[in-house]
Amino acid sequence: MNMSKKTPPKVMSDEHNSRHAELRRARRDAMNGGANKGYPRRPHVARDSNDKLYIYGLHTVRQALANKNRKKLRLYATKNAVQRLEFDLIDAPDMEIIETLPKQLDKMVGSDAVHQGMILEVEPIAKKDLSEFKDCNLLLMLDQVTDPHNVGAIMRSAVALGAGAIITTSRYSPVESGVLAKSASGALDLIDHIEVKNLADSLETLHNNGFYSVGLDSEEAIPFEEIKPQAKIVLVLGAEGKGLRERTRETCKILAKLDMPGEIKSLNVSNAAALALYISRQKLK
Amino acid sequence: MNMSKKTPPKVMSDEHNSRHAELRRARRDAMNGGANKGYPRRPHVARDSNDKLYIYGLHTVRQALANKNRKKLRLYATKNAVQRLEFDLIDAPDMEIIETLPKQLDKMVGSDAVHQGMILEVEPIAKKDLSEFKDCNLLLMLDQVTDPHNVGAIMRSAVALGAGAIITTSRYSPVESGVLAKSASGALDLIDHIEVKNLADSLETLHNNGFYSVGLDSEEAIPFEEIKPQAKIVLVLGAEGKGLRERTRETCKILAKLDMPGEIKSLNVSNAAALALYISRQKLK
Repeated sequence: MNMSKKTPPKVMSDEHNSRHAELRRARRDAMNGGANKGYPRRPHVARDSNDKLYIYGLHTVRQALANKNRKKLRLYATKNAVQRLEFDLIDAPDMEIIETLPKQLDKMVGSDAVHQGMILEVEPIAKKDLSEFKDCNLLLMLDQVTDPHNVGAIMRSAVALGAGAIITTSRYSPVESGVLAKSASGALDLIDHIEVKNLADSLETLHNNGFYSVGLDSEEAIPFEEIKPQAKIVLVLGAEGKGLRERTRETCKILAKLDMPGEIKSLNVSNAAALALYISRQKLK
Repeated sequence: MNMSKKTPPKVMSDEHNSRHAELRRARRDAMNGGANKGYPRRPHVARDSNDKLYIYGLHTVRQALANKNRKKLRLYATKNAVQRLEFDLIDAPDMEIIETLPKQLDKMVGSDAVHQGMILEVEPIAKKDLSEFKDCNLLLMLDQVTDPHNVGAIMRSAVALGAGAIITTSRYSPVESGVLAKSASGALDLIDHIEVKNLADSLETLHNNGFYSVGLDSEEAIPFEEIKPQAKIVLVLGAEGKGLRERTRETCKILAKLDMPGEIKSLNVSNAAALALYISRQKLK
């Protein structure tokens, strides 16, 4: 980790969208060329692997408990919630359980977070290496997509549609957070996350391993449906508005658009991801 | 409008997700059978048609200005923003323009809302009648899907994928709000919204007009891909978790699932909508 960077906050798990809002604000400030008014952190700093975070909500907590690669620290939960998790807790016999009142849980993650009486304190999962995924046939690469609601929904679709892993850069990586985990509805603990230094270099590595890279681009490209059948596909998506960065674009084997008949030609990034993953699957031979 | 209902708030346009959070909280409270702690409004009340609301952000404001059916009241904007909207303002020659400082705009919609220097005060668009859509071939019906981020993304996909209108009940209708408009990225002003009393009755009417209704259901149903080609389709989606209500389910001609190869079998509702709309289009003959 680059030591010159500040460490990001340890907990950002309310659904008030505050992290998201902060990121947008920081970006807007940066775009305006102005000072970073009152924004104390750099939005793209990779989290220290020893950071803890809060995961909440029945489904999300269940998947985290079931994930052997996830280090669980302690569970804050109401008596009722502990009962609901009875069978899930078998997987974590030594974990500390702290009976907590709903009001206290509200304070921990914000009263708007639908915690369903349970907050699990965990460590982020260790990132994996690209070389471990040579044999899967569908990967998803995100080029600076960081919004936790969208990334969460994308992870969920990636799991549902059978993508083997999500690849991001270490800088501009989506930060594992309570909001992201909740939006992912359990998928955060079901999909592997690969962090790489440089997307273009990683695409070259993937090409050498037999992957065909398809960059999604709503302008000047062929329809996604026209892609020829491939043995392995890595789908590359950019952030809304910005799209793919130049070197990423140039390195993709093909740029394709989702062809839309209507007046709007681009979808919300998570909707676009779902559709592109679906069509990519159909192209796998 | 049912006069026994309270009028909802006039402005709910910050991206702090407060309306969304309120709705979730209200639902959670209702599900817990408890009192509606501190929640002052009923979440499903239809807005009075004279309510005003704030629409913000370049793209969203542009589409609203271009929409002839949208009553525009006044524009609060920075000098710069007025310049950016120069050509768009030709469509609204008599509208009052109030030069406003960014700080004041922040106060109006919340400092986290990406208003890009412009807030347009408008009236909600008049809802349309089902009978006006006999001749279109793809409609989208939402059964109690109200989350403004999701409904906004769904509207955007519905426009992009060529659905003619969105049908909801008057109760449990998504409330036209700044957050919804921003999530819809202009689509709020590009798609017609039909409010009906009863979805099942409306489905029967649509059946009589040659529509084939497909209810999305992630359990115990045939894969969406197996639907036979149809001249006209109405796609019916329920809220996440709750799914379709019983009478809606029973009235649909067919219930179909999006077949997922992965460990998660259901998508975020807006992702599911995008995918189901895409496949529905392929089924139109």
